[in-house]
Amino acid sequence: MTNRATAITGVTLIDGTGRQPITPATVVFEGDRIIAAGREADVVLPPEATLVDGVGKWLIPGFVNGNVHLLDAWMFMIGPGTIEYLARWEGRFVEVIEEAAQLVLRNGVTTVFDTYNAVDHVLAARDRINAGTSQGARIFAAGAIVGMGGPFSADFHFAGRRAASQSFVNRIDEAFEAGVGHQLSTLPRAEVRARVRDYLARGVDLLKIAVSDHIFMNVGFDRSYQTFSREVLDVIVEEARYAEVPVLTHSLSVESLDTSVQLGADVLIHANYTMGQPYPHELVDRIAASDSWAELQTIHADHTKGLEAAGNWAAQLGGGAYAENERVLIGANAKIIMGTDAGCPSVDHLADLTPAERDDRPWTIGGDHFHWTQSMVEKGMSTLEAISAATLNVAKAYRKDELIGSVEVGKIADLVLLDASPVDDIRNLRAINTVFQGGRAVDRESLPTQALVTAHPRAIG
Amino acid sequence: MTNRATAITGVTLIDGTGRQPITPATVVFEGDRIIAAGREADVVLPPEATLVDGVGKWLIPGFVNGNVHLLDAWMFMIGPGTIEYLARWEGRFVEVIEEAAQLVLRNGVTTVFDTYNAVDHVLAARDRINAGTSQGARIFAAGAIVGMGGPFSADFHFAGRRAASQSFVNRIDEAFEAGVGHQLSTLPRAEVRARVRDYLARGVDLLKIAVSDHIFMNVGFDRSYQTFSREVLDVIVEEARYAEVPVLTHSLSVESLDTSVQLGADVLIHANYTMGQPYPHELVDRIAASDSWAELQTIHADHTKGLEAAGNWAAQLGGGAYAENERVLIGANAKIIMGTDAGCPSVDHLADLTPAERDDRPWTIGGDHFHWTQSMVEKGMSTLEAISAATLNVAKAYRKDELIGSVEVGKIADLVLLDASPVDDIRNLRAINTVFQGGRAVDRESLPTQALVTAHPRAIG
Amino acid sequence: MTNRATAITGVTLIDGTGRQPITPATVVFEGDRIIAAGREADVVLPPEATLVDGVGKWLIPGFVNGNVHLLDAWMFMIGPGTIEYLARWEGRFVEVIEEAAQLVLRNGVTTVFDTYNAVDHVLAARDRINAGTSQGARIFAAGAIVGMGGPFSADFHFAGRRAASQSFVNRIDEAFEAGVGHQLSTLPRAEVRARVRDYLARGVDLLKIAVSDHIFMNVGFDRSYQTFSREVLDVIVEEARYAEVPVLTHSLSVESLDTSVQLGADVLIHANYTMGQPYPHELVDRIAASDSWAELQTIHADHTKGLEAAGNWAAQLGGGAYAENERVLIGANAKIIMGTDAGCPSVDHLADLTPAERDDRPWTIGGDHFHWTQSMVEKGMSTLEAISAATLNVAKAYRKDELIGSVEVGKIADLVLLDASPVDDIRNLRAINTVFQGGRAVDRESLPTQALVTAHPRAIG
Amino acid sequence: MTNRATAITGVTLIDGTGRQPITPATVVFEGDRIIAAGREADVVLPPEATLVDGVGKWLIPGFVNGNVHLLDAWMFMIGPGTIEYLARWEGRFVEVIEEAAQLVLRNGVTTVFDTYNAVDHVLAARDRINAGTSQGARIFAAGAIVGMGGPFSADFHFAGRRAASQSFVNRIDEAFEAGVGHQLSTLPRAEVRARVRDYLARGVDLLKIAVSDHIFMNVGFDRSYQTFSREVLDVIVEEARYAEVPVLTHSLSVESLDTSVQLGADVLIHANYTMGQPYPHELVDRIAASDSWAELQTIHADHTKGLEAAGNWAAQLGGGAYAENERVLIGANAKIIMGTDAGCPSVDHLADLTPAERDDRPWTIGGDHFHWTQSMVEKGMSTLEAISAATLNVAKAYRKDELIGSVEVGKIADLVLLDASPVDDIRNLRAINTVFQGGRAVDRESLPTQALVTAHPRAIG
Repeated sequence: MTNRATAITGVTLIDGTGRQPITPATVVFEGDRIIAAGREADVVLPPEATLVDGVGKWLIPGFVNGNVHLLDAWMFMIGPGTIEYLARWEGRFVEVIEEAAQLVLRNGVTTVFDTYNAVDHVLAARDRINAGTSQGARIFAAGAIVGMGGPFSADFHFAGRRAASQSFVNRIDEAFEAGVGHQLSTLPRAEVRARVRDYLARGVDLLKIAVSDHIFMNVGFDRSYQTFSREVLDVIVEEARYAEVPVLTHSLSVESLDTSVQLGADVLIHANYTMGQPYPHELVDRIAASDSWAELQTIHADHTKGLEAAGNWAAQLGGGAYAENERVLIGANAKIIMGTDAGCPSVDHLADLTPAERDDRPWTIGGDHFHWTQSMVEKGMSTLEAISAATLNVAKAYRKDELIGSVEVGKIADLVLLDASPVDDIRNLRAINTVFQGGRAVDRESLPTQALVTAHPRAIG
Repeated sequence: MTNRATAITGVTLIDGTGRQPITPATVVFEGDRIIAAGREADVVLPPEATLVDGVGKWLIPGFVNGNVHLLDAWMFMIGPGTIEYLARWEGRFVEVIEEAAQLVLRNGVTTVFDTYNAVDHVLAARDRINAGTSQGARIFAAGAIVGMGGPFSADFHFAGRRAASQSFVNRIDEAFEAGVGHQLSTLPRAEVRARVRDYLARGVDLLKIAVSDHIFMNVGFDRSYQTFSREVLDVIVEEARYAEVPVLTHSLSVESLDTSVQLGADVLIHANYTMGQPYPHELVDRIAASDSWAELQTIHADHTKGLEAAGNWAAQLGGGAYAENERVLIGANAKIIMGTDAGCPSVDHLADLTPAERDDRPWTIGGDHFHWTQSMVEKGMSTLEAISAATLNVAKAYRKDELIGSVEVGKIADLVLLDASPVDDIRNLRAINTVFQGGRAVDRESLPTQALVTAHPRAIG
Repeated sequence: MTNRATAITGVTLIDGTGRQPITPATVVFEGDRIIAAGREADVVLPPEATLVDGVGKWLIPGFVNGNVHLLDAWMFMIGPGTIEYLARWEGRFVEVIEEAAQLVLRNGVTTVFDTYNAVDHVLAARDRINAGTSQGARIFAAGAIVGMGGPFSADFHFAGRRAASQSFVNRIDEAFEAGVGHQLSTLPRAEVRARVRDYLARGVDLLKIAVSDHIFMNVGFDRSYQTFSREVLDVIVEEARYAEVPVLTHSLSVESLDTSVQLGADVLIHANYTMGQPYPHELVDRIAASDSWAELQTIHADHTKGLEAAGNWAAQLGGGAYAENERVLIGANAKIIMGTDAGCPSVDHLADLTPAERDDRPWTIGGDHFHWTQSMVEKGMSTLEAISAATLNVAKAYRKDELIGSVEVGKIADLVLLDASPVDDIRNLRAINTVFQGGRAVDRESLPTQALVTAHPRAIG
Repeated sequence: MTNRATAITGVTLIDGTGRQPITPATVVFEGDRIIAAGREADVVLPPEATLVDGVGKWLIPGFVNGNVHLLDAWMFMIGPGTIEYLARWEGRFVEVIEEAAQLVLRNGVTTVFDTYNAVDHVLAARDRINAGTSQGARIFAAGAIVGMGGPFSADFHFAGRRAASQSFVNRIDEAFEAGVGHQLSTLPRAEVRARVRDYLARGVDLLKIAVSDHIFMNVGFDRSYQTFSREVLDVIVEEARYAEVPVLTHSLSVESLDTSVQLGADVLIHANYTMGQPYPHELVDRIAASDSWAELQTIHADHTKGLEAAGNWAAQLGGGAYAENERVLIGANAKIIMGTDAGCPSVDHLADLTPAERDDRPWTIGGDHFHWTQSMVEKGMSTLEAISAATLNVAKAYRKDELIGSVEVGKIADLVLLDASPVDDIRNLRAINTVFQGGRAVDRESLPTQALVTAHPRAIG
């Protein structure tokens, strides 16, 4: 961090709080913190401040993605690709996570919440980035999902168990499950409590609970179970509260979503995923009245059409009750945050897709947040609301709003300077001029510093 | 029914209530009812009564099996065999059910509770037997299991969906699901209520609820989910209470068993099946203190050894926590009833087994109740307790004890006369001399009247 | 058979030999034989002959199908459906074969060559029809295919082996393999000779040899093997010649077709099936110069489009090198016969298809010969050539032309009377007025006398 | 290479030709060549020769393995493990091949014939070792097998095609097939000739032909096809002769072995693999009378027992007709060479095995040649014959006996010095004191110079 202050002047400021844009505005930061932000006329420039000319530009907070997976990508982890990806990069998982965190940062996302990953590896990458040993978006990590299995369990690529060495599949599953995997569903509550307590002691930032199961890809889209009894869920939440980490819930049905709201979850992951069932009215009211933040996953209309044309099963997620649920929650003024479930797929896997599936893909990091904000505006948000949902709301949901999420005095100087107005057209969020993270301009062109997953298929040597 | 009374005299009476045997005793029945039962000295023989010399014999109530499946057999329905069996007998399901009911009756079981079957077909067979149009053990039927799928769903032979015509698999699944299958797990509670209400209107005798899932064979033995939220379960139980039918629960874990007890289920099906987890102490207390009857499924030591030698996965069900749970509930004086989950497998499927797996198989109707009583004595019951568990207790659990289950005045004259003492050796229950059902001696040799499933493999013609 | 002669007068006669139509013509038959056929003016009517007014009608020989499978249908036997079909009808195979033979006869096919079937059952049906005990098209049968496995082998529905009882699958496979199945490919030539000799002693009418394998559905369309070494093939053909039965070859590649021609096969089954490879020129010359008859399988353009629209893999068989091979052989004046590989699929399986796949399906008996003749004209045959290919040529190929195939004196009176001219439009072969088999008018409406496979899906009972 | 001569004196010399041991003997080499070898008394030591004291030691030629696969290992390539192995090492195949070549050399094998591998990579490794850029056993390579598919084809791990990205599986298959894969089986002979000619132009040292198929693991052990017609085989052999490379045949049945002998193959790979059929007598005579060398694969009795105990299907290869065929060929004085089909499996895969399967495994490089020679002596060879079969015979079979295979003047100085007598006990071949390759003592402890495949499972990082 530099000691001299930096001032962006003459800019149109969209501060992430939902307030109307201020123009002309000046934002000043020193070290990693914002020390002034407001109407140009109201801000006194520090002497010797480095000036950045913001005239004709727009300044927003750094994006915060409330749901990513920096290792691998769920669309491929639930199917073929799991063995190949994990075997290829085993031994280098931390590097791969950092590569993903850099690709994200390159595109203006200064903080991510990683909600499922190899536990030790994501924590190691988090710590390395925090320590400045490595570069990338700031990471807060859940590690395992309580009650969910690893990549080779029935929650993901179950068939893969029989297509690789057992030593390998067991080692990988353990890395993701960390003792709180799907086997917890068979245990009595006292045992679950002990396991979760041990798990929290690893130092994760969040606790994600599989309120409903995740085996639909293996047993069909027409069933959805509750992983735990209500008593067990209460036990798990108690432990999280005791450890003072936010609680995330994974739910795939209206009833498990309802249960999640009852549990007082901080974040309802993919709250619009209800196995194609529209929300009952009472549930909408309960969500809107609750303190829970709904993370919605969304696909914009163009991409949905592309998925349909390719016969991709995921096309259904872009319409029907899924999209309707998004509209209903927006209409009900529910608290909504951005999350994309995006990951970093291999070049080979992307090559298997049709262009319509691959281009502007909502589950590939780098562009996922652009896709999300665009789709949310389609579903009824104002552009300002979409920006807040992708910045300050995520910070609030995860109780990190003391530090990040808006352009306000005292916060970390995570900023994105744009060349075009995102208020006029939300797609202008893509027009990034400069990304500042912790008060420093990011050398975007240099990222990722090491291309592994995103390198072109190597001539095999 | 004959109008003349019949009197069995000089017999040792074990009346099913758990009382000590009475000897010499006389039991008199007229029409289908018992009109006297007690010490020989206390009973006045009606004039013209037909006398049956019971000297040197033992008289017990007809067996009542609390859990059978008269069509197919679960061990084969969860795996290969489903298509073959159901395609072969489609169009003749009622006949096959009657064949099974006759094999059961031949071996002294005068009443069965069928807890999963093709709904219309089991009800038709029930009605035909009740009307005297056909012969067989008296049937009370649950039909579908609320929340569980049909034979080709992920609850059973999921792979079978891709190995037969879709017209066929869908038709079969619908016959077993009747609108209350696994799709219910995705629906909100109001919709579940409507579906269950419609289902009960079909005239089933029992309502069985899948409190936990049944997909372990497809996704592994190390997970077990709850099918429904607690709110949905309450809704389902409410509907059953309103319709005045007993509630059965299917559970496979300690937590789902706990939930089942909380729901006030009348019968806890395979209460000892807990995915290999021993009961927590509090759960044992809760079961013992509850009004619920625990149906235990048991494998005796000899057969368990045979399964082990054959490498059959089911061997685990005969030992470990499964057997320990049986012993614990017996020791805690919990209310226990016989249920075997037995069905009527095809000759071909039995031929695939080793002799050690096939002989005295606990899941093949005909001998399953002998196996059960023998195994329960191994696990700690007295012989008299085992007999009560296999007769009056079942009737009580299902609230049919006004009619059946014991040798008491006013009850239906379902009786089994034995040539050897089951008190001395529980295996003597196999020494059947005569079976009376509704006051009539059963022509055991004539059963089944038509061998379909149990006919020897036909030379293909 | 009636003793009085029947005379069809004033008809346009297409006698099957390829000669130009004769009109007005008279054809007279007595008992089962034709006793006169020619220009009306040249034929003296026997006294008391029953007269059939043929004015405005066309008379052709009964159709002869050179390649059918009266039990099941290959398109379903290579995939899901095998277990279901065979389990459902086991014990009634002879009846099912007769049902198929009757459906065929109803549509004017008076003789079929069944080239793969359950051996004992097809021979029993053949004998019953020959003896007049049953009704149906006259059957000549190959039974097993030398070197090919049964329905549950890797040649067909291999996955089915694991989805049914082993007792069942082994029994079925043995019924089709009869000791000369795929295991022959592992044996030395002396052992193959002994097995084939034993097989021929069963009294089959034809010997069909798998010159190439049939496992493409299980291992992919991009490989095709030779089942046997040349020495073994020579041994097999020697045995067939010694037994005086015609030799059929199954080949799927240009090289195995070449080998088949070298072997002097009487019939080259699906000679146009070459894994998408066009014939080398020399091979066309060799075929044309040989004594072998090429059985071609063909799909007309309309149906091919329907298959394409449905994404059905079989669409490729209707175009590309497959269709080109047909055209080339027609152009080269090779000896061509009709064969369709058609079978009698279940109603359930047909229900799984789209209408475009199901309607006028080339592999469903009943209409297959209409499809074939129409498609051959599309590919370049004249209508008269197509009729000869579907009648006399087949008889010649199988050396049955002394008895059947044309409307000539001395031949069996197998005749089809049409209401419209097939010379003008080959599709008029569908305009059947009357079918005569062995001199008797067939009561077409009564066929099949018993609907099993073709009955509508039964409400399951 | 050093310029000073080296002399091993006082040693017992077993020169590989089958001659009786000479003792005391002296062997002298200078540069990479042997310049003297014989009775101590007959050899004049060059002045300044470096002396190696061979008293109490035994000297044999460097081992030559006639059939290895330096990348991966067939036992795992035909099943699970393929994706994992190839994805993990893609980009480093040449290094992995060199690692294997070093492990082999460390154990006294100075030359190997690699008969199936990624074509470019094995040739690159060969060239690097020849050029001295890398170290390892001298490699002669066949690359692809004509008519056989790649690792993800039906010849090997077919199921793997659906468990990885298509980009990856296609890239890998192409690397192994190089245009002469299984698709050749569908092509006419002229096209096959062109493809083989192109393939030979790549500079492979050997041409291996799949005379029979290799799909038994996917379709069952009870069938074996011929990949090509005899005409196509002749074409392929012609091309190999023209290019002056030795011809190897892959056969799995008595008939395909017979065909291979007829073709005049130089080496009959796994000639004892006949799908469990004993050789017909005539075939034994034909082999013995031919110029072909039989490569036998063998499992010694102890290991066979271990495989049996573990229920490993490969146990059958150690007994029955497989072992009997070995004995018969030995008894018939057929020309026999060592080949093991061994590869370099990953630590993970070996960890999946039981100790009995893993220890002294015949298919793991490093000890495979010790296993082979031990087993051959069990089957009837004298110890001297076994040593010749593992050295000079292989060189002769592949026409490299001008250079290698025996301890004779003019040959390359590939030598193994032993501490115990292999004549007394063949297991003493394991008692290696020193390995000389091309006249240089190998630093065995330093090999492999880089452990990739053989490194212990990494803590995932």
